[in-house]
Amino acid sequence: MSEWVTAFAPASIGNVAVGFDMLGLALEGAGDRVLARRIDNERVTVAEVRGLDGELHPYLSTVAESNTASIAAQAFWDDHGDTGSVELKVHKGVPLQSGMGSSAASAVAAVVAANGLLDTPVSVEALLPYALEGEKFASGGLHADNVAPSLFGGLVLCPQVLLPSVVHLPAPSGVSAALIHPDLQVNTAHARRGLAKSYSTRLWLEQQGLLAGFVAACHAGDIDLVARTLRDVIIEPQRKDNVPCFDVVKSAAERGGALGCSLSGSGPSIFALCRTSDARNIASAMEQACRSQGIGCESWVSPMNAPGARIEAA
Amino acid sequence: MSEWVTAFAPASIGNVAVGFDMLGLALEGAGDRVLARRIDNERVTVAEVRGLDGELHPYLSTVAESNTASIAAQAFWDDHGDTGSVELKVHKGVPLQSGMGSSAASAVAAVVAANGLLDTPVSVEALLPYALEGEKFASGGLHADNVAPSLFGGLVLCPQVLLPSVVHLPAPSGVSAALIHPDLQVNTAHARRGLAKSYSTRLWLEQQGLLAGFVAACHAGDIDLVARTLRDVIIEPQRKDNVPCFDVVKSAAERGGALGCSLSGSGPSIFALCRTSDARNIASAMEQACRSQGIGCESWVSPMNAPGARIEAA
Repeated sequence: MSEWVTAFAPASIGNVAVGFDMLGLALEGAGDRVLARRIDNERVTVAEVRGLDGELHPYLSTVAESNTASIAAQAFWDDHGDTGSVELKVHKGVPLQSGMGSSAASAVAAVVAANGLLDTPVSVEALLPYALEGEKFASGGLHADNVAPSLFGGLVLCPQVLLPSVVHLPAPSGVSAALIHPDLQVNTAHARRGLAKSYSTRLWLEQQGLLAGFVAACHAGDIDLVARTLRDVIIEPQRKDNVPCFDVVKSAAERGGALGCSLSGSGPSIFALCRTSDARNIASAMEQACRSQGIGCESWVSPMNAPGARIEAA
Repeated sequence: MSEWVTAFAPASIGNVAVGFDMLGLALEGAGDRVLARRIDNERVTVAEVRGLDGELHPYLSTVAESNTASIAAQAFWDDHGDTGSVELKVHKGVPLQSGMGSSAASAVAAVVAANGLLDTPVSVEALLPYALEGEKFASGGLHADNVAPSLFGGLVLCPQVLLPSVVHLPAPSGVSAALIHPDLQVNTAHARRGLAKSYSTRLWLEQQGLLAGFVAACHAGDIDLVARTLRDVIIEPQRKDNVPCFDVVKSAAERGGALGCSLSGSGPSIFALCRTSDARNIASAMEQACRSQGIGCESWVSPMNAPGARIEAA
């Protein structure tokens, strides 16, 4: 048996308001760690899953077929592993069902750690499909908007139609993300089933125009255009009632000068993009607004070019 | 009565495959001219409309309330005119109902010419809403994907949600447009009524991903990504059967190495984006394919940064 290799993968903001299922942003300051070592076994195994408190996790499974980390690592090892298999320890740093890409962070950290066991690791780009395998188990679909930013960092455009390729978008200079995680849980697969099955031409053209404008704004570093385009007219209206504090938190962000504010993934986390100089104050205002509704929360502030997953020194 | 001022406005490619109703490209080599002079009258009048052959036009109306040029000029003069009104001569260079933005070119040339009569002309950006008034009469909706590129030149992202603002996209270097106009007519308003009213989430997410990727590709100058994203999965399949030569022309363009090929606007014109070194050959191949179906045609080759409307020297 070899030494443990530790990989860290950050939390992420899915959808980023304008890009349902196809736009994601890495979030600095929260993430999962997965430790991997070689074992003389036929299949990937999970030795332990620990929670934020460091204790053994009360819900997440160590059954390899039911754990996003081991599913991802198994898919990777099937294609690239040499001999034996891999044992994992999963240390969750991203709260579950938070809308912060918790399952994606575990899947990404697992493949990065397993890759770190190889004498000749594959490129980071080649890891994406394996991390997606783990995420597919958790979310029920092939959506890369958490896996891709967690793996690569920064702001990533990753529509299904282009996978396994993704498009890295430049982060507009002077913009940061603020995120609060209200102490509520939303099940991603359940939230997805609640969405309408079709939309009017008018509505999807409006959303498509906002996304295209946002992509151009990021490339041009046009903060005013970021503010005019960072809106979700399709998904947010259908999901926001799952998050009782959403309206007051969004109002607080907007009063504080946020460029835009929406659910992170399917919630309950709520993010805002802000001028970097406003970001701390906006995060505080969002947190206060949430607590004013009797709901506890945590907050993070992150640059838009937060780094992606990496091996940590032993 | 003052001297005549002449404005030229180019033809344009609407939709550009990926951006239904919100993306347009100016086309060099074809356009309308509108001559304007001050008159002592209460309303804008149209002295004449001449066709491509220089003869008085057999169909287009000189009734000011039914002509896109005079409707646009009237709207402009109502807001910015000083005294009297404007007389127009419309010299069509863009074939009617060709999918080349014929009505948009007339409306744009009219407002640019009328603006040229003012002692202190307004900015070109301020002209867009007036040109749109004329286009609205012709096409039945507020779509800027021909007006905006004809006015500004180049490649313009102009979703309704952002109007009257538009986003100028950088033309990827080394890419040109080829366009053929088969000798067929398609009525834009009729083509629009034939479209489905709603679409599945899967389908619009696919198209939205392609558009967002294309915008990023233009900004990054990534020709491979242009080729992977320049596709219309929603509108082209519904409209292509109106253009009997479409499939063979598209196949010819693709065999010639086109980055993508689709209908221009609602057709019958068909455009391809190509590496500039391939553009002439691809235009010829498209023309030959069209003629092989017994349909006559004309072709154009244009850079992607073709200039927009302008006053011509007397």
